[in-house]
Amino acid sequence: MRVAILAHGKFPDDAKTAVGILQYGEHDVAAVLDRDRPGERVCDFLPDVQDAPIAGTIDDVEGPLDALIVGIAPIGGGFDETWRPDVVGALERGCDVIAGLHYFLADDEEFRALADEHGCELRDVRRPPPDLTVAAGTAREVDAEVVLTVGTDCSTGKMTATMELVEAARDRGWDAGFVPTGQTGAMIAGGGIVVDRTISDFTAGAVERMVTERGDRDYLFVEGQGAITHPAYSAVTCGILHGAMPDALVLCHEAGRDAIHGYESFPIPHPSTHVALYEDLAAPVRGTEVVAGALNTRHVDDEAAAREAVADFGDAIDAPATDPVRFDVGEVLDAL
Amino acid sequence: MRVAILAHGKFPDDAKTAVGILQYGEHDVAAVLDRDRPGERVCDFLPDVQDAPIAGTIDDVEGPLDALIVGIAPIGGGFDETWRPDVVGALERGCDVIAGLHYFLADDEEFRALADEHGCELRDVRRPPPDLTVAAGTAREVDAEVVLTVGTDCSTGKMTATMELVEAARDRGWDAGFVPTGQTGAMIAGGGIVVDRTISDFTAGAVERMVTERGDRDYLFVEGQGAITHPAYSAVTCGILHGAMPDALVLCHEAGRDAIHGYESFPIPHPSTHVALYEDLAAPVRGTEVVAGALNTRHVDDEAAAREAVADFGDAIDAPATDPVRFDVGEVLDAL
Repeated sequence: MRVAILAHGKFPDDAKTAVGILQYGEHDVAAVLDRDRPGERVCDFLPDVQDAPIAGTIDDVEGPLDALIVGIAPIGGGFDETWRPDVVGALERGCDVIAGLHYFLADDEEFRALADEHGCELRDVRRPPPDLTVAAGTAREVDAEVVLTVGTDCSTGKMTATMELVEAARDRGWDAGFVPTGQTGAMIAGGGIVVDRTISDFTAGAVERMVTERGDRDYLFVEGQGAITHPAYSAVTCGILHGAMPDALVLCHEAGRDAIHGYESFPIPHPSTHVALYEDLAAPVRGTEVVAGALNTRHVDDEAAAREAVADFGDAIDAPATDPVRFDVGEVLDAL
Repeated sequence: MRVAILAHGKFPDDAKTAVGILQYGEHDVAAVLDRDRPGERVCDFLPDVQDAPIAGTIDDVEGPLDALIVGIAPIGGGFDETWRPDVVGALERGCDVIAGLHYFLADDEEFRALADEHGCELRDVRRPPPDLTVAAGTAREVDAEVVLTVGTDCSTGKMTATMELVEAARDRGWDAGFVPTGQTGAMIAGGGIVVDRTISDFTAGAVERMVTERGDRDYLFVEGQGAITHPAYSAVTCGILHGAMPDALVLCHEAGRDAIHGYESFPIPHPSTHVALYEDLAAPVRGTEVVAGALNTRHVDDEAAAREAVADFGDAIDAPATDPVRFDVGEVLDAL
């Protein structure tokens, strides 16, 4: 599938979905759209992912395209009206448009009319299945060893850690499945339920459904969301923890981050506090423990400093730790 | 408003909404509908609430009616097709129909057509406002002393404890407000957001909106939902805890209950475990503590045994405790 990925003003640091697809997706990326960086290239910023040119608008992308993917998600998940010309342009040239926003493209009259006219599809991956219901409490019965990534904040690298674990487990010949819970994960996996968009009564039920459906693998790596200490998103985190009933947790943190992103008056508690909170909260439903840590050191330039930060993080949580992007996840897999 | 309340097969023990309206609502209840108990009366079961006859169907209810209220909510919140004749009968005689189900009556073609034909309204109190968004982390800034009821399970008496606290506080001359978060509370209050039906990303935001809108009272009593240890509903509980940012918690438990209702393979942890879990989970966002306990002793016949159970519960949580229905809430208010 040949795609363009919209990431205006946010590429690469705040374009989690765009970067996730460049790194882990099987898409052929024709271009990233960022009006602040036309003429530059993905490899100028991210040497280790699929390269692509950066264009200012959809009209600057040449050749056939199957889809435009909205690769950024602002807080609140709204649609930024400055993106409208690109979505319209994509539909007018017959491209599908795929988005993971709370705002559904298919509910937009202009987009729907254009999609009908040009025979394209509007795919809102955040739209939950209509038949979700409450959890039955059954995820603990699956055969798979269920591993959940949990965090100290949003955007600490839970999706990345999960994907690195899946890939490394498969490289070892393990029978490993992936349970996406966010828009990027669902886009990479080509399916799944974006749980932060589910009715909160059904959040655990949505995760339980995915875990039980995929539960016949040897290992199941579940992408976590948010943080149990997040002032806005903890409900989602809690629903995933109790819905997935994991056998093991991997705690994800970003080196140097000491306040909740976008909520700077809320300090991030010490990693050991997170270990205790996640384990204590899980225990009444399904006992589990933090078996390893994943530290995101993207803002630590020096390699030695990154290694030291990882070692400190491991000491803080009293478990093996790594940076799954910079180093490898062998020790984490060994801990399972 | 003269109403009939549908509670087929569930009155009184499993008809939380029906009983809540009989007890705390300002509605004139013409009849309760329960096909298992036609000809009996509310006062045969509940001597201390508004009395009303029990009828088998809506057609057995005489006189003018303003509305039919669906007063039961099965697990999952679906519409039971055996209720259809009563809803149809109500609409055909010109009554509004008010429900708090996940299934929206207004989305049902037959009901919508009948409502249009007879000029009635279909009010789905669980339908969230369309403009909800993520929490901003601002509930801690309100002037009011915010008191949240939290539980060890669903249906432990959080709504009842909250209403008793509001009424007793007002009897003392305190300026006390009520924040409903469930369908019964919203029906009693004549408004509010039913938070278990919100998108889980917005659950904390919905509670924050209600708290900040009503935050200029001296005291604000927030109705809690579920339990932080519930395998299906903990996401909602967590969103309320972090969205409301309470100054004080009142822990609600039912005497003798030792497993999660409907999830009997999940034991309910000791009340002191709940105290620690709620306080530890709240702390990173907004420090708070369990200042009192509310024990539901409805299944304890003997008065002395109920007093002893309340005393034991107080010892278990190391705070003053009462049964807000059987005894009074003076000590709880004193603890605030």
